[in-house]
Amino acid sequence: MNRWHLHPQLADDTVPVIELALSEVRLLDDANHPWLVLVPRIADVTELIDLDAAQRMQLTAEIDAASRALKALFKPDKLNIAALGNMVSQLHVHVIARFHNDIAWPRPVWGVANARPYAPEELIERVQALRSTLG
Amino acid sequence: MNRWHLHPQLADDTVPVIELALSEVRLLDDANHPWLVLVPRIADVTELIDLDAAQRMQLTAEIDAASRALKALFKPDKLNIAALGNMVSQLHVHVIARFHNDIAWPRPVWGVANARPYAPEELIERVQALRSTLG
Repeated sequence: MNRWHLHPQLADDTVPVIELALSEVRLLDDANHPWLVLVPRIADVTELIDLDAAQRMQLTAEIDAASRALKALFKPDKLNIAALGNMVSQLHVHVIARFHNDIAWPRPVWGVANARPYAPEELIERVQALRSTLG
Repeated sequence: MNRWHLHPQLADDTVPVIELALSEVRLLDDANHPWLVLVPRIADVTELIDLDAAQRMQLTAEIDAASRALKALFKPDKLNIAALGNMVSQLHVHVIARFHNDIAWPRPVWGVANARPYAPEELIERVQALRSTLG
C-alpha cells in the first residue's frame, strides 16, 4: 500500500483550504468561479466506487459540507458537482458555484476559459472565508 | 408539495432502464457513450444538498450501483459522475463510462459531439443488459 500524496497537477492548480476527516479541501486558483476540489487522502484510488462504504459515506458528507459552504458564501444560482478524473486520475471531486452570468454558463466549466489566478489579497480573503465557513 | 414528474427534456433525451428505490435510471440515447442518468423521484429538488440525509445516502448507493453496472458491462477506462443541472434544473446525476478512445476523451462529454441515437436493436439490447445487471 502506497502512501497518499497530492498529485502534483492538483497541487499546482489549487491552494489548501482545510483538511476534513477524509479529504483535503482545496481552492482552484481561478477567479472565474468559486471552485473547490476535494481530494480524499487515500492512496491509489481513482473511482468513487474504489472507496469502502465508510469512506464513501464520509466523502458524501464532505461534498455536502463544501456545497453548503459555497452556497452560504456566494449564493450561487446552481452548484456543479463532479468526479471526472480524465486528466488527473487521482480521485478528486469538483464542487463549483455557478452563476447565470459566469463566463461558462450554462456550459460545464471545464475547457471553456483559461484559469484567471486570483490577486494575492483576494486569494487570502477567499481562503479565509472558506476556512471559517468549513471549519 | 408538487407531485414529481420527469422533466420533459430528460424524457426526450433518455429511455427508461429501471426504477430503483429512489431514482429512475435512464439511458441517454447517445451511442457515443454508455451514459446513465439517475433522477430521484422527489419533486422540486435541484441540488444534492436539497435531499434529506436518508435520500442523500440512498442516492449515493444508487450512483454506486449504476457505476458498478457500467464497469461490469463495459470495462471503461474511467467513470465520470456529475450533478450539473445548468440546462435542466431537475436534480439528475450523470454516470458515464469513458474510454481513452471515445469521441470526447479526455474532455468531459458535454457539448463535444451531437448525440448519436442508438439503432433500435442496439438500444433494446443495451437496456436489457443494464436492466439485468442493475435488477
